Amino acid sequence: MTGRDGGADLVPLGNSPVVVLVRPQLADNIGAVARAMGNGGLYDLRLVAPRDGWPQPNAWRNASGADRILDNCTVHETVADAVADLHRVFATCPRPRHIVKPVLTARGAAAELREVCGRELRAGILFGPERAGLDNDDMACADALIRYPLNPGFMSLNLAQAVMVMAYEWWTAEDQTVPRRLMTNETRVATKAELENFLVHLVDQLDASGFLRNQPKRPGMVRNIRHLFQRGEVTQQELRTLHGMVTELAIGRRMRGRLEKDVMAD
Amino acid sequence: MTGRDGGADLVPLGNSPVVVLVRPQLADNIGAVARAMGNGGLYDLRLVAPRDGWPQPNAWRNASGADRILDNCTVHETVADAVADLHRVFATCPRPRHIVKPVLTARGAAAELREVCGRELRAGILFGPERAGLDNDDMACADALIRYPLNPGFMSLNLAQAVMVMAYEWWTAEDQTVPRRLMTNETRVATKAELENFLVHLVDQLDASGFLRNQPKRPGMVRNIRHLFQRGEVTQQELRTLHGMVTELAIGRRMRGRLEKDVMAD
Repeated sequence: MTGRDGGADLVPLGNSPVVVLVRPQLADNIGAVARAMGNGGLYDLRLVAPRDGWPQPNAWRNASGADRILDNCTVHETVADAVADLHRVFATCPRPRHIVKPVLTARGAAAELREVCGRELRAGILFGPERAGLDNDDMACADALIRYPLNPGFMSLNLAQAVMVMAYEWWTAEDQTVPRRLMTNETRVATKAELENFLVHLVDQLDASGFLRNQPKRPGMVRNIRHLFQRGEVTQQELRTLHGMVTELAIGRRMRGRLEKDVMAD
Repeated sequence: MTGRDGGADLVPLGNSPVVVLVRPQLADNIGAVARAMGNGGLYDLRLVAPRDGWPQPNAWRNASGADRILDNCTVHETVADAVADLHRVFATCPRPRHIVKPVLTARGAAAELREVCGRELRAGILFGPERAGLDNDDMACADALIRYPLNPGFMSLNLAQAVMVMAYEWWTAEDQTVPRRLMTNETRVATKAELENFLVHLVDQLDASGFLRNQPKRPGMVRNIRHLFQRGEVTQQELRTLHGMVTELAIGRRMRGRLEKDVMAD
């Protein structure tokens, strides 16, 4: 899941949420955040009071080519300033307490963000500092909180990982990829007639070899062989290989048979 | 999204897939992988031919307390050895080429992994080295490939981020959290009667203040005020605060009115 793509194609695809890092501590993390944003199709980064100032060269070193996101990021003194032009703001928060506020899963938030951005409103997501997370005043700037469903026994989530999960959900919220498909590349899945043709060839040779000599068991054995080859979609190319394998094995057997006869005749 | 939890609760919750890192290069990444695994409820880590040997102290330093996962991880010479006891193996692969193999999304793979693990079979997920990814021989050890739907313009995914996405999907595949809920903590959502009681109070005071003096517009204005307060679920505690605000504003107005009269009388 690696390989550097450079950031040449990091051009916004439409209205997407702003990522707001509140008092981030480590430049390495800011760079990793930019990379995760690029992965999920988020482009606008804002920093509120970064601890070590800005810019920080380590961020660019850790962004794996997501330079455009860092180049265009803006720095703000307060959360209120960073969200001033936004219409809807979400705040990630692992353990909300004593607050009356809607709490969304990452997937639920992604769906709402898509809805908001689809109306040409501007949305943002707040992420807190590495150690402490967002404070109560930060969360009061948000419409709703986001809490990821994750292992309650180990919730310690790295900042860039938190952004990754949200960016991934943002992307997949509109992704149409089917959950499973057979990739066949240069070849295509065989038709049932092509598969049948091979099965006839195979059973003929198994009969000739004596493998199916037990007549009462023969129908069940043939059925089981059929089930095996129907289970995964076999491609044309694989059928050609299978035909070749059966032919060669049969020839080998006949050759060996002839050799054995020759030996017996001696 | 942070805060160290230690790894005390990192006890397997049941049969979960093994994470196999194939020829990982950086100990930092192996530590970050262990942390991401803990977040998503994955516990078994196997390393195939780690470049810098094993153990590496940097891994533990970067695991944020997911020590148990590193302590229990095993090292293998080949992929075949690492998957020998497994029944189903998936391989993450960003750009599959020239292969005939099922390709799953991360979500599709998580659903299949849950199904396989639910039958008490053992499953595993291969992740390739940081730079090159899995090679063709590695992928030939797998039943199916996993390809995340992500921004095709920027697919460069950090190793720990790749594990994070898969661990997150593994966890959420069985998570029942509703996408949105109102967190009310100590209080509860007001009943419609409680809300009505406040709206009557508010409209009374607005009538008294003259705010609703335009009789033709009055019904529409009252309706709009009703719509606003119905939009978000108002809690009992918030209603008490709103009652208090209206009362104090009304008293303030009457006091000011009296003061103004006094001034006029002077």
